[in-house]
Amino acid sequence: MERIGSINQSQNLDAIFAALADPTRRAILSRLAAGEASVNEIAAPFRMSQPAVSKHLRVLERAGLIERDIDKQRRPARLKAQPMLAAVHWLEEFKQFWSSSFDQLDGLLEELKRTKAKAPGNE
Amino acid sequence: MERIGSINQSQNLDAIFAALADPTRRAILSRLAAGEASVNEIAAPFRMSQPAVSKHLRVLERAGLIERDIDKQRRPARLKAQPMLAAVHWLEEFKQFWSSSFDQLDGLLEELKRTKAKAPGNE
Repeated sequence: MERIGSINQSQNLDAIFAALADPTRRAILSRLAAGEASVNEIAAPFRMSQPAVSKHLRVLERAGLIERDIDKQRRPARLKAQPMLAAVHWLEEFKQFWSSSFDQLDGLLEELKRTKAKAPGNE
Repeated sequence: MERIGSINQSQNLDAIFAALADPTRRAILSRLAAGEASVNEIAAPFRMSQPAVSKHLRVLERAGLIERDIDKQRRPARLKAQPMLAAVHWLEEFKQFWSSSFDQLDGLLEELKRTKAKAPGNE
């Protein structure tokens, strides 16, 4: 898949990352991963008002992360995870830096284990 | 690596995703992937004031995505990409949904190619 124009791409990333920067919205996405749900169904576990949930749904919809049926009274929301891929692609440009940090951490943990094993008084 | 407590994890994700929701901050991170840089060096390509860049650096620092030397006059900023891994982990929970979208898209593209190849008048 080709990258779309960089300005659009950038605006999409702004909207996607901003949408993900809220714990309720992330929880809503996790809920929708199990299947489509109405606002009431989404609101239930959060003890949140329906308007508050609707507001979050609008943010997710604008970021392209969910879609809602217009023609049904329940207006169930459905996960659209594909735009997340743009976020993952962006993050993956830094992959070498996570890896090296992790390699360093792994090395440190190995070192600690060896030191602990060698130390007298340890089982 | 074990997940840290879910509340901390959630607050970190809030800060990380919010920090990434701005094109200048993403560009700063890309710049720092090439090596540490002072505020002036970071500001140069953006035609942005130094205070504006400093503000972005503070957001990135609070999200744990950069660190700055306190004891040096230049206070160079350095990339700390490891917290991005928490964001990637979160996104990867949805991996099956990107994959299926992509498989569908691949299927659609193949279908289009075949249709085009079959259509009369095409080279």
